[in-house]
Amino acid sequence: MVRSLPRLIRLGRQVDPIIIGALSKGSSRRFSSLLSYHFKVGGKRVRATMVILSSLACGGSLEESLKPAAVVEMIHNYSLVMDDIIDHAKLRRGQPTIRVRAGESIALLIAMHYREVIDDIINECKGSDKVRQVAVNTMKEIIDGERLDLLFEQAGRKDPYLVTNRTTVPSILLYLEMIGKKTAALFRASSEIGALTAGASRRATAGFRNYGWNAGLAFQVMDDVLDIFGNATGKQSAKDIIEHKMGNVAVLMALKFLPTKDRVELQHILQAKRVSPKLAEKARRIIGKTPAETASREVAQGFLEKAKAQLIAFGDSQYARGLGELAEEFVKRTY
Amino acid sequence: MVRSLPRLIRLGRQVDPIIIGALSKGSSRRFSSLLSYHFKVGGKRVRATMVILSSLACGGSLEESLKPAAVVEMIHNYSLVMDDIIDHAKLRRGQPTIRVRAGESIALLIAMHYREVIDDIINECKGSDKVRQVAVNTMKEIIDGERLDLLFEQAGRKDPYLVTNRTTVPSILLYLEMIGKKTAALFRASSEIGALTAGASRRATAGFRNYGWNAGLAFQVMDDVLDIFGNATGKQSAKDIIEHKMGNVAVLMALKFLPTKDRVELQHILQAKRVSPKLAEKARRIIGKTPAETASREVAQGFLEKAKAQLIAFGDSQYARGLGELAEEFVKRTY
Repeated sequence: MVRSLPRLIRLGRQVDPIIIGALSKGSSRRFSSLLSYHFKVGGKRVRATMVILSSLACGGSLEESLKPAAVVEMIHNYSLVMDDIIDHAKLRRGQPTIRVRAGESIALLIAMHYREVIDDIINECKGSDKVRQVAVNTMKEIIDGERLDLLFEQAGRKDPYLVTNRTTVPSILLYLEMIGKKTAALFRASSEIGALTAGASRRATAGFRNYGWNAGLAFQVMDDVLDIFGNATGKQSAKDIIEHKMGNVAVLMALKFLPTKDRVELQHILQAKRVSPKLAEKARRIIGKTPAETASREVAQGFLEKAKAQLIAFGDSQYARGLGELAEEFVKRTY
Repeated sequence: MVRSLPRLIRLGRQVDPIIIGALSKGSSRRFSSLLSYHFKVGGKRVRATMVILSSLACGGSLEESLKPAAVVEMIHNYSLVMDDIIDHAKLRRGQPTIRVRAGESIALLIAMHYREVIDDIINECKGSDKVRQVAVNTMKEIIDGERLDLLFEQAGRKDPYLVTNRTTVPSILLYLEMIGKKTAALFRASSEIGALTAGASRRATAGFRNYGWNAGLAFQVMDDVLDIFGNATGKQSAKDIIEHKMGNVAVLMALKFLPTKDRVELQHILQAKRVSPKLAEKARRIIGKTPAETASREVAQGFLEKAKAQLIAFGDSQYARGLGELAEEFVKRTY
């Protein structure tokens, strides 16, 4: 049975009523529509899908997997709303961000409220203590990953801590630590929480953890590649370059391959006070001279293979296959 | 035995090593000094003191009360760091705020990290499930109280939600709901968590809850009074008026007492695009024409009496007396 992404996503979407219900509990109607706004504008719920499929693959029931899946999806969106505040983002999923819609201070309060609702939903999960432990540790990692991501910015923010501690030497190792915490940790939590909920053995749970971790690394590496080189629909944003980010796999690969003159020029662009679209285009041309795209795609493919290798031990159930296809979508994706 | 405030506070200060220890766990030395900065610049730890005294008054041990006290103090400081971000505050306890010291985005990440550390310390408390339940519900209240406080602002912020939903009609009832959530809820949590930790009966716990709630209301009402009329050292900031806040007991009382002309003028000042020190002084003079100060102090005194009345049932132990004196300090205070 081949599952297309839309079919996989339909699984994850089942967490929406749980989230909307938890958010509206105990708040005035006027405010609760604002609380749920962020969830109503879309989102693919791939992390929720991963929780559900992992749970089903371990013999769990769909019903018991939905609340743990909602927890993971809430964590993701909590971090998105905070990130949008940190990055002064105007759009998310093609719609105004909550900070634009409601205002900066209210967006911050809404994100803080999300954090408490995460705890409410955790309480309703089977094995809530274990779920909470994974959730809290993961949130700490996400927060630290965001810090490392900010430290990779080569200019822009005036935050004293960033100005003093900025990462100026390209390092793939530090990059992997950053994306591991920022992105892969929550995917690892997704497959782990799914397995835990289904009462999987310690050994099986470790396998699922590894699957999620590697799938998450593949996801973020591809995200970086698409940011610089665009997807099949031809869209390129180079948002990372405009935001002075050296913490992008393609940028780091290019810096490794480039001759001194070009490398210095690329670094100068990232350090520019303002990166115009023209400058960003120039950076992209410099990166394009190198095998950075191929090399980066190979990195993503490598993580994908590692993720799929973990699944072999769990037989050929439709759910394990679904997880394999989900990870493949992370690398194939055009979204 | 008469306890002076410094002696009471010394009790609460014992949570500091617990907090600093929990914050530094698992983060780089460079970053952990920034994480604990906010706690090292001071703070009176009155909420921690309240947890400890409540626990001791219910027969609990000092040792078992320290971690619950650290939880409450962390919640308080989590909300302070977020408030300083929301209010663009430059100083806190006479020192640069963490958002000034580290930068806005890093301050936000630090506050988010505080929230996770709260959960770590909760896990180490005796009766952690109950402590967590009180903590989470209280944080929700604090967040909603902050929203109501922002809605009381008569001008300034451009947040679409605030512009549309602003509270324009003076209401003491809504004010009490606001300060109840924003301030009194955490004092109520302090005395409740103290009692719970000591294994107090349901009835005793309810008494302690009421004590903390009323003491907290007295605390916030006095805070408002001191903001407008200054303390014994003669310092007046009228920060609330400069920040367009109608959610101050003295302002609301004055609006009740004033003849139409003066009332309209006071309202206009609160709605001014920018409230200059001169305008704020004018507002203070208008408020000074009314019995607002006396009436507000009576409100605080009333809550203090209610708080102390709750303690009678718990005998004349030195700890119950300490709680009475603590609440008295909230009303007497010149800080």
